[in-house]
This record gives sequence, C-alpha cells and structure tokens, in this order.
Amino acid sequence: MTWLELPHDAAYGLATLPYGVFSADDAPSQVGVRVGDQVLDLSEVAQALDHEHADVFAQPSLNALMELGAQRCREVRAWVRELFDDDTYRDLVGAHLRPVAGVRLHLPVEVADYVDFYASESHASNVGKIFRPDSPGLPPNWKHLPIGYHGRAGTVVVSGSDIVRPNGQRRPDADGVPPFGPSTTLDIECEVGFVVSGPTATGTSVRVSDARDHLFGVVLLNDWSARDIQAWEYVPLGPFLGKSFATSISAWVVPFEALAYAEVPLPGQDPPVLPYLQGQTDRDVFGLDLHLEVRLNGSLVSAPEFRDMYWSPAQMLTHLTVNGATLRTGDLFASGTVSGSSPETFGSLLERTWNGTAPLALADGTTRGFLEDGDVVTLTGWAPGRDGAQVTLGKVTGTVLPARRL
Amino acid sequence: MTWLELPHDAAYGLATLPYGVFSADDAPSQVGVRVGDQVLDLSEVAQALDHEHADVFAQPSLNALMELGAQRCREVRAWVRELFDDDTYRDLVGAHLRPVAGVRLHLPVEVADYVDFYASESHASNVGKIFRPDSPGLPPNWKHLPIGYHGRAGTVVVSGSDIVRPNGQRRPDADGVPPFGPSTTLDIECEVGFVVSGPTATGTSVRVSDARDHLFGVVLLNDWSARDIQAWEYVPLGPFLGKSFATSISAWVVPFEALAYAEVPLPGQDPPVLPYLQGQTDRDVFGLDLHLEVRLNGSLVSAPEFRDMYWSPAQMLTHLTVNGATLRTGDLFASGTVSGSSPETFGSLLERTWNGTAPLALADGTTRGFLEDGDVVTLTGWAPGRDGAQVTLGKVTGTVLPARRL
Repeated sequence: MTWLELPHDAAYGLATLPYGVFSADDAPSQVGVRVGDQVLDLSEVAQALDHEHADVFAQPSLNALMELGAQRCREVRAWVRELFDDDTYRDLVGAHLRPVAGVRLHLPVEVADYVDFYASESHASNVGKIFRPDSPGLPPNWKHLPIGYHGRAGTVVVSGSDIVRPNGQRRPDADGVPPFGPSTTLDIECEVGFVVSGPTATGTSVRVSDARDHLFGVVLLNDWSARDIQAWEYVPLGPFLGKSFATSISAWVVPFEALAYAEVPLPGQDPPVLPYLQGQTDRDVFGLDLHLEVRLNGSLVSAPEFRDMYWSPAQMLTHLTVNGATLRTGDLFASGTVSGSSPETFGSLLERTWNGTAPLALADGTTRGFLEDGDVVTLTGWAPGRDGAQVTLGKVTGTVLPARRL
Repeated sequence: MTWLELPHDAAYGLATLPYGVFSADDAPSQVGVRVGDQVLDLSEVAQALDHEHADVFAQPSLNALMELGAQRCREVRAWVRELFDDDTYRDLVGAHLRPVAGVRLHLPVEVADYVDFYASESHASNVGKIFRPDSPGLPPNWKHLPIGYHGRAGTVVVSGSDIVRPNGQRRPDADGVPPFGPSTTLDIECEVGFVVSGPTATGTSVRVSDARDHLFGVVLLNDWSARDIQAWEYVPLGPFLGKSFATSISAWVVPFEALAYAEVPLPGQDPPVLPYLQGQTDRDVFGLDLHLEVRLNGSLVSAPEFRDMYWSPAQMLTHLTVNGATLRTGDLFASGTVSGSSPETFGSLLERTWNGTAPLALADGTTRGFLEDGDVVTLTGWAPGRDGAQVTLGKVTGTVLPARRL
C-alpha cells in the first residue's frame, strides 16, 4: 500500500521507521526518519505541510518530539507512515529523502539520567560466579527487585564514536600498591536501551500498567566495561570508572509502538514479585522478542535473545520510580547485559570467554579474551513486526583506540 | 573600602558574594548575587553597564556563567566586587538590590551528571561497621582511590523543597517476602557539593594541579537516604532507590575563589596515593576548613568539620576523569557524608544514633533515631575568609512529608 519502492526484506522497512538526528553539509542538526538506505528530512516535510508540530523536528535531539507525550507521538508516527502510503505525498517526500551515507548522524537524545539494570538471570549468575566465586551466584535481592544503578549520562555517545581505552587502578596482589594503567580487560555488554518521556511529578510513581506511556523507543546499547577497573572499585558503592568512560547507543531510535508484535510473556518469575511490580492485566508485564547479534571484527561471537530476560522493561521503569523519583524526558535506562543460558548467547566477553580463560577464535585466525586496540565491536538486532515484516533495531558500533598517556 | 552598609559580622558579607538564580513577581529567573539580606540583580546591572558577558546573567541557571571558564569567572567576580567597592556604582547597584525575602530562589545549576563520593574515613568506617559488621570497616580499595558512584541528577532540588518519604522494599527475614512501604529509617547526609565547569575532551583527564580550573563553586548538600531501602538493594551495584528520590543543595553557590583562605593540608594519606592522585606542589592537594552544622527541628545535632576529610576535592575530580570520562558544565560532585572521629561530628543519623540504637534528644523533648514526618533538617556552614572575615556557606533545608500511597 506504499508508493515507496523498497524490497520486502529491506532493512529499515516501513515496519521500523526509526527516528534519528542528522545533519548534512553545513545545515543544523534536525530530526529525520530512516527508511531503507535513506533518511527523510522530517523538518522540511513538516514545514512544507504546515504540520502542527513541525517545530519538534527542527531540533538537534528527539527530546522535543518525546515531550509531546505518548498519544501525540503515536499520531506523529501515523502521519509519517501516511507520507509513505499516500501517493499524493510522493513528490514532496521524494524531494526530501537523502542517502543515509551522505549525512552525519548524531546522538539522537539529550540524555537526562542514565540507569543501567541487571535484568538477565544468566548474566547476573555468571558475573556472580566470576567476580564472587565464594558467594551464591545471585544475590538474595535479585529475584525481588530489578537491580540497577545510575551511569554517566554525559558519556553516552552515538554509534560510530571511537572508544578510548580507559586508564585506571587494578586490584593489587595482597596488600601491595594497585597497578595503574590502561585497562587490560576491556569488555562490551550487549544491551537494549529504553528512551523515556516525561516529566513526572515529584513523589509519584509510574505504574506497571502505565509504563508504555513513558516508553518512547528502543536503542541498542553497548555498555563498554573495563573489568579490571570495575572489579577493584565496585565494593561497596557499585561500578563507577569501569563503566563511565563510554556507553554507545544506536543512532536510530525505534518507536516502542513498532515492537507491538514483538511483545511476549516473560520466561517466568518465581517467587512472585511484590504487587507494585505486577501489572493489572497479562499484557502489562511483557518481554520482547528481540534477536541480537554481537560481532567482533566481523565475526559473529554471540547471539543473545532478549526474550530470555527475567525482568520486564515495564517493571524496570516502575521500580525506578517507586521511591517517588521523577522522570525527565530523555531519561535512558538499559536492560543490563542480555545473556541466555548457553555460551553462544552470552552478551559480554567476560562471560563468553569466562574471564578470558576460554578465548574466542575470530575469522581472521586471531583469538580474543578481551578487546585489543583497533578492535571493532558491532551490535545489531531485529524484531518481528506485523505480517512477517521485520523491525530493524539498527546497530551500534565502535572501534577501540589505544589509551592516552596521562 | 565598600560603600555598602553591612555589619562586619553579617552573613553573606563581601567575602562570600555567592551566585544564585532568583525570580521576582512574574519576571523570568535570572542570576543574582547575594549580599547580606539582599540579592543584586546582576542581569539588570550588567545590561545597564553594557558588560561584555551580560547575557550569561539573563539565564535561568549559572551554567552559562560557568561556561565562560575559570579565568573569566575570576574577572566576573572581581567586577562584582568592584560594584560594591566603587562609589560610582552606588546608585545603580542600590536600585537593583532586592530583599532576598521577596524573591523566589531556584535550583542554581542545571545539573549534568551527579557523582557522590565517600571521602570521610570516619564515615566509611562507621557505615562499614553498621552495614557489614562481619567485614573490616574500610574496604581494601578505600585508601587507594576516592570511592564514588553516580547519583540521580534529575532529583537534585534546591533548598526549601519538601522531601516526600520514599516507598520501597526492605530486607526480609530469612527467605521471606520483602516488606514494602514507606521507609522507616529515613536519614540525612551532611555533605559539601562541588559545581564543575567544563567541557573536557573525550579521553582526557583533569590533573590534580589543574582541578581549580574546573571547580566553579561550592554548595551544601543533603544526600537524603532511606537506609532500609539502601541496605536491601545495594549489593552488588551500589545505592539506587535509597538515594535517588531527592538530593538537596543550597540555593547559593559560593565561588571556589572565596575559599582560598580556607585551604588547609589534608589530615594525611597513608599509604601514599598513586602518582596520578598526587599534585605537583603542596598546594595542589588541599583540604578545606569548612565548619558545618546540622540542625533537626532547630536542635543542633552535629557539627562536622570538612577538614577531617581524607580525600581532597581535587583528587576526587581527577579520579572522576582518570578513565577519560568527559566533564560537562553543570556536573556536580559531592564529598560524601562529612564525619569526624567523635559522635558530635557525625554527619548522618545512621552514625549519630548508631543505627537508631542511641536516639538523639531534641530541644522539644522528643527523641529521634531516624527522621519522622514533619521533621525539618537544615545544614549550614561557614569558612574563614581574608582578614578574619567569614565566608557564609549558606544553608540547605528541607521538610519531610509523609509517603504517598501507591
């Protein structure tokens, strides 16, 4: 029903229509929507059509669009879809489509607060075994609440940004002096990020059944992690410099609506969660059938399945606000590493190589325990859409650069 | 040498001249400087005098001012001082002074990232003994690095904001179901916050000897803490909902320059810290002689001395960036609870009442282990200035409101 000439199996088909921020030539950054290998300049089209919200597209982030709220964002998405379905828009839209290869993509969201969860049972259990071999794999709170912590919003970067290997302290032998220098165990975490619209009022909470009203969209997220720095610093206040140097997200934000056909039941929560983490209907607490792939220098090294996650994104958002903490538009929360039960689905090298003890063989004949300088890591993903269509989750990629000398 | 008629011992004398953001009547928020019981409208004065940076004062936060950088901020402070010293400005300035009681004070900084440290040895040791009675008081990393974690920037609020008691999960008995409801152990943490100017480039670090160039100013900070929520959730990723509901800061930001006469040596660091945490000269690693007071419903319950802190603010800033994490203008980092060695200087009720086991007697005849609804907590402070003058660190106050029903 579309005038657009796009192969049925093309990436970024009409089932996806993700938003991003781009600039071309010397023009200011503004909001576009991706279709196939092209980006549509929504600001130009909206102005030409005198769209009531044209101003939200002439912005260097998606925040103004998100600020419209869930209902209006649904209307905007329907309007975008209509641009490609209604033949009367064909010339106008065609005039404002540009090859994505010819534009520069920017961080799509002005990130307010960034929270990272720990919602994969397999990941939490694996990390527990590796970092705390003398303790039970899962801490006692794990099945009662989605554990999370705040990360550094200011170092969330867009896909394609280079990642400078961090310097830091490592655990010393016995009572010695901590070694200091470039991290020797640089890792990735394959995660899904949720971009949130707000605001909410101080002291209020978002109910599980209302979570969709605040879930604007989804990005792939690589939570780069320096395991040696993290292992030495994280007791008792949690990860800090082992994570805060960089977090990469995909340039294209897939509207949460696009994932309606990917909603699935959770694997199961036992013991039952507290009432505030329960929904009012079966649909309120959902998993997502997102298929993820991790490539290291082009070699597929893991294929995590998001449907294996223990906690629902809706429960994470509710937990985040149950203490009355406000949300702001642009808040970003991530799932934590997505790991299934088999090594081929582990979403970090820490787990995939069992802390470097079982190195991975790459296609170029080399092996990896952790990342080397020059390595390129790329996360991609897709989800089922309507009538067999695929929703493209985009990609997030980054190249490791050598540490700087202090 | 000033035309201003102000008692020598007045609070907010010319040794302080802190910046804040205020609004009056229906006018937009803009930058002012406080002197005595009055606030000077810097935007009006700067416009009248055609000041080259007049635009930075016509803003709803101090961020644009901070963005000018350390050298220009020093010049701006010198200019402000001159307004009060040079009799030719007397009429103009007098016309734009307003009673502070007649204006509304706003959050002075658009907070970018918020990091909370843990820099008091006495506090870390006390908390260790209370939360982890079977472990050594200080974790093994504590004297090697200033432990810190990211907090929630979006819930940093200005002094005077009410604090709604948070709901949350608490640790269950044995393997039972976690109790859920309003925190029963709501606490405060008396801290000093440092407002930072940036930006810095990705992958670079701020050296200890350059820290002053990024330390714009100081606020008092109350890191409200729900101890029961915190104790259950914080392993292994650190404090989250036990802290993220609210962090209060004073409305007036004291320029770092004003504390030049309060710089003192640290109590001493043993073992020696790693080279990246050392300065180039004795002056680079400094403590601050800030005298703090904690009042609960008007009763003085603690008098922490910031000079007891183990780690220097410069070291905290350097550590925060040693992994290449960027700074943004508006970043805020706090010292962690300021506690000395005697109970009268403990900066939290957790320590002051030893987890509620030694309740405090208040002037009204009641006692407190932790905070009750309706309680008012106020932090104040001062520092030595030039020639015996006092620098007023302002105050941060908040009233506890009952938890909301979910």
